[in-house]
Amino acid sequence: MSIHPAHTRIEQGELNVPVTCVQLTNGETFHRYTTEGPGSEPEVGLPALRGDWISVRDDTETYEGRPTGLRDNGRRAIRNGAARQEWQGNRRAPLRAKQGQTVTQMHYARRGELTPEMHYIAQREGLDVELVRSEVAAGRAIIPANINHPESEPMIIGRRFLVKVNANIGNSAVTSSIQEEVDKLTHAVTWGADTVMDLSTGDDIHTTREWIMRNSPVPIGTVPMYQALEKVDGQAHKLTWEVFRDTVIEQAEQGVDYMTIHAGVLLRYVPLTAERVTGIVSRGGSIMAAWCLAHHQENFLYTHFDELCEIFAAYDVSFSLGDGLRPGSIADANDEAQLSELKTLAELTTRAWEHDVQVMVEGPGHVPLHLVEENVRLEQEWCHGAPFYTLGPLATDIAPGYDHITSAIGAATIAMHGTAMLCYVTPKEHLGLPDRDDVKTGVITYKLAAHSADVAKGHPGAQAWDDALSRARFDFRWRDQFALSLDPVTAEAYHDETLPSENAKTAHFCSMCGPKFCSMRISQDIRERFDDQAKAGMEAKSREFVESGASVYVEP
Amino acid sequence: MSIHPAHTRIEQGELNVPVTCVQLTNGETFHRYTTEGPGSEPEVGLPALRGDWISVRDDTETYEGRPTGLRDNGRRAIRNGAARQEWQGNRRAPLRAKQGQTVTQMHYARRGELTPEMHYIAQREGLDVELVRSEVAAGRAIIPANINHPESEPMIIGRRFLVKVNANIGNSAVTSSIQEEVDKLTHAVTWGADTVMDLSTGDDIHTTREWIMRNSPVPIGTVPMYQALEKVDGQAHKLTWEVFRDTVIEQAEQGVDYMTIHAGVLLRYVPLTAERVTGIVSRGGSIMAAWCLAHHQENFLYTHFDELCEIFAAYDVSFSLGDGLRPGSIADANDEAQLSELKTLAELTTRAWEHDVQVMVEGPGHVPLHLVEENVRLEQEWCHGAPFYTLGPLATDIAPGYDHITSAIGAATIAMHGTAMLCYVTPKEHLGLPDRDDVKTGVITYKLAAHSADVAKGHPGAQAWDDALSRARFDFRWRDQFALSLDPVTAEAYHDETLPSENAKTAHFCSMCGPKFCSMRISQDIRERFDDQAKAGMEAKSREFVESGASVYVEP
Repeated sequence: MSIHPAHTRIEQGELNVPVTCVQLTNGETFHRYTTEGPGSEPEVGLPALRGDWISVRDDTETYEGRPTGLRDNGRRAIRNGAARQEWQGNRRAPLRAKQGQTVTQMHYARRGELTPEMHYIAQREGLDVELVRSEVAAGRAIIPANINHPESEPMIIGRRFLVKVNANIGNSAVTSSIQEEVDKLTHAVTWGADTVMDLSTGDDIHTTREWIMRNSPVPIGTVPMYQALEKVDGQAHKLTWEVFRDTVIEQAEQGVDYMTIHAGVLLRYVPLTAERVTGIVSRGGSIMAAWCLAHHQENFLYTHFDELCEIFAAYDVSFSLGDGLRPGSIADANDEAQLSELKTLAELTTRAWEHDVQVMVEGPGHVPLHLVEENVRLEQEWCHGAPFYTLGPLATDIAPGYDHITSAIGAATIAMHGTAMLCYVTPKEHLGLPDRDDVKTGVITYKLAAHSADVAKGHPGAQAWDDALSRARFDFRWRDQFALSLDPVTAEAYHDETLPSENAKTAHFCSMCGPKFCSMRISQDIRERFDDQAKAGMEAKSREFVESGASVYVEP
Repeated sequence: MSIHPAHTRIEQGELNVPVTCVQLTNGETFHRYTTEGPGSEPEVGLPALRGDWISVRDDTETYEGRPTGLRDNGRRAIRNGAARQEWQGNRRAPLRAKQGQTVTQMHYARRGELTPEMHYIAQREGLDVELVRSEVAAGRAIIPANINHPESEPMIIGRRFLVKVNANIGNSAVTSSIQEEVDKLTHAVTWGADTVMDLSTGDDIHTTREWIMRNSPVPIGTVPMYQALEKVDGQAHKLTWEVFRDTVIEQAEQGVDYMTIHAGVLLRYVPLTAERVTGIVSRGGSIMAAWCLAHHQENFLYTHFDELCEIFAAYDVSFSLGDGLRPGSIADANDEAQLSELKTLAELTTRAWEHDVQVMVEGPGHVPLHLVEENVRLEQEWCHGAPFYTLGPLATDIAPGYDHITSAIGAATIAMHGTAMLCYVTPKEHLGLPDRDDVKTGVITYKLAAHSADVAKGHPGAQAWDDALSRARFDFRWRDQFALSLDPVTAEAYHDETLPSENAKTAHFCSMCGPKFCSMRISQDIRERFDDQAKAGMEAKSREFVESGASVYVEP
């Protein structure tokens, strides 16, 4: 589904790297990075783009996989004896690394191998493939690409690359259905989400994820803790490493590309949150804190971290090291709890890298503008350049209903300073679950924040998009201005509210100023008059201007 | 009109300084700066709050004033022989300074006088009155307060004070009516606009402004050029100093508090714009550029600047020195045209100050994030600390329809670095004229950007608002969370979309996570358990936690 008639998805080169081709009315074309994928029937799923790339490496094997049961779908499935709407399409046997092998992109990169995934990404970003490889090898970028998610179009997350945007979807105990979640996924990638996290916490959790995985052209992230907690009836103290491990394998077999793991919430950090204005606001963080207190034991995600690394290495699941102690209000920003956890995440980063497992590190949250830069600076220093992945941050707490905006301010700022991926925030943040429209608003808002940072960082080619749109604007090519917009539908609708006629699409003014105050039109006159400025003196030009009418006004 | 049942406008102290008192459900109150004024019947207008303060100074005189004619209302009035809807209320004879007197707040400040306006502002901002006086005396802050706009509640614009937000309204040749504009004014100040600019360019221009002035509790700004151009039938080269001067006096007599004057668009700068991506995008700038070229003469606003100062000094009109050559795309940001003009604005600032006339300096526009700080740094250096007043700036050009957000990113950043007032941008920017809803969205978006900067700058008391809201959030005081929001109506509506019941207003969860994943609830448990941590060992606490149920889950 294209968002505008002037947009076509085309595929280029041997690897069929997709791009959105925008056809302009002056005969030019403009190419945009695209995330929407080739499109799928939800019941059939997407083709396995990476299937051959993975099999030709000959380092994986299929196996029977973990048996799935009613418990995987939560209490309703157990009650009713079945989950709703089992996914209809082709089921592949899961893949895993052959004994003794590591199948992560980091592993290949460190061996000096240029994988098809890296070539694909290099072409997508317009950068050299060796840059892709070396950044992944150094841990400064990740390619989230589970071998059981061959439908995904490879992408990269790292500060040398385009800033990426994640959209959260997922049902909760209170609302939403499977169809809605698949629809949100499609909506999110159509508008530009680079990855999607399925944060479902309600029923049908395994089945919902299967539908999402099979239809997603972008990497999918999860927080396995949510499903693990469902399996112990929501009682945090009943959680065990075994239940958690089983859930991770279940999700790795489904193809989840990265998982948030709250392994940095250490027992000794929990008391540091007691005096905070808003305590612990991460769901996973609060669950682990409750577990630690109940057992007076160290976080089992921390104590079993190396086992997690072994599992991740066998499927190429990337860590998203969760910031369970992130601030939930600007009052709590950059406090001891947050920074203590970050130091532990730095230690875990190094441990994961010893297994050639890819890592990104999660960040806040709520941070006043003057403290934003410190967050990314410390993360980059302490975590040796591992990609930073932040939720906003919100620059103020006073605007619920507008937190996509309060957070876009923080997000653009933190991305400019080096954050690699931004987790979107929708207008419903703090108030309710986002619906389809909120997903779109969140994605567009974060795309513009990410692009603002790309421009500020001087990413090659980033400003070309701004310039193409501004030239269309100056030339009164209204149709091109719409087509080049992040959201052509809204841009055109707003224009048409006051000037709906077809003529207005080529008019040399708009309703903002009306015809006689149009500065752009006057500027065009000035430019034309200066085109041959070298040939004639200023005074002669002035005479000519007056003689030619000298009018900047045309009766409408 | 209050925006929420928990909000009451109260007036405090001898000067009746207003504040919005927010009544919280826990018995506490929270005081917010308010701009909405006491409310008025549009046909009657507001009371003259400052009337006595002005008359007691005994440095002004009433006089007959400039005769107003049909021409002042534009071509329709001339065609139809009358303007529509002449303002109904009481008409005061205009005031001006007595011969040889200067009646500006800067003049009083430099003489060491503490005016009621300064006291009012000090109380409003929670700062010392001597700080107000000294900043105004030094030119680092302005109090826009025309003696013919006694209805206005004094406010201050300067980097040591709260960041202010201006909302533009005004009809154009294409759309809008007087009632709509007065309604937009009221809407803008209700939601928090600190000043309003009437940018009308269509018919009924004098009469529309009269309605706006008499009903505005906030300072009103204009661009007199727009009306002057109407008087010469939209033909820029027919503009004369005499027509312009007459228009300025007309508006000064009506009470306009600050005027944008594009005196920095010098003849020699115009060629610098010829190679730009988007030329000249300021309406006033392009008109003056066209005039300069047509006559091959220096900008008459520049050559007659001292005369303008004399007029402004007689009414206490403040300069808003227009940046006619501001960039209209990020490609043109911080270029030679823009910075050359800024140097001229610096020269004009000094000249105005010689007349004790107050000055702020306008800034861009469209600026990529990495160039934002330079804008405010150069302005502050070159213009000796005169308040900076910027339009956004937009951090990217690619998101028409979302330019309130692209510009809020730039606005928060530039305000954090010292910009004193932000001119809002609405979702309709570049596409059409804002309607009532757009005005609200623009104001709220800019209030949150301004507040983000206030917090980052450490303005005394700014963060107290965030903290009050965050505490309400942590305590599940949903009603207080709404009441403390910038937009309580939207916050409550979003919450109620999924959980409309009255019970949900006190529920210890929301639809985002459902009851069992509510991190805030778990955090509260943790806090309670640490309250007497000093008394008991961690292990004992742990036992107790498990024995007490250890559950973080309650069946919904």
